[in-house]
Amino acid sequence: MMELPLAPVERLLRKAGATRVSENAKVELAKAVEDYALQLAKKASELAKHAGRKTVKAEDIKVALREL
Amino acid sequence: MMELPLAPVERLLRKAGATRVSENAKVELAKAVEDYALQLAKKASELAKHAGRKTVKAEDIKVALREL
Repeated sequence: MMELPLAPVERLLRKAGATRVSENAKVELAKAVEDYALQLAKKASELAKHAGRKTVKAEDIKVALREL
Repeated sequence: MMELPLAPVERLLRKAGATRVSENAKVELAKAVEDYALQLAKKASELAKHAGRKTVKAEDIKVALREL
């Protein structure tokens, strides 16, 4: 299930130098980015639990990013 | 400059098992995800140009993902 909207994904592609972008390319990039985000989020969530917290904080994201 | 909206980022964190999420954690995750998306998008855009196309296609994203 897709969570990320395609409009900002298209803006990112244009920012990255794309002249034109196919609809499928947007969907494909959104999927890849979402997989990555979910991995990071899972790691961060585990780290918060490990620290005895119910709230995921920015520091959990930062550590998850280094460990991924 | 942030492109990704925070609401879907928060939904991803909850999907990943987070009970509560700080505002800064959402911003931090959105930044990390955006960096990753931009790297993928740059690679895909280069691959499309390399193939003599002006349009970035799904196949460019797939190859970029393997090369990243």
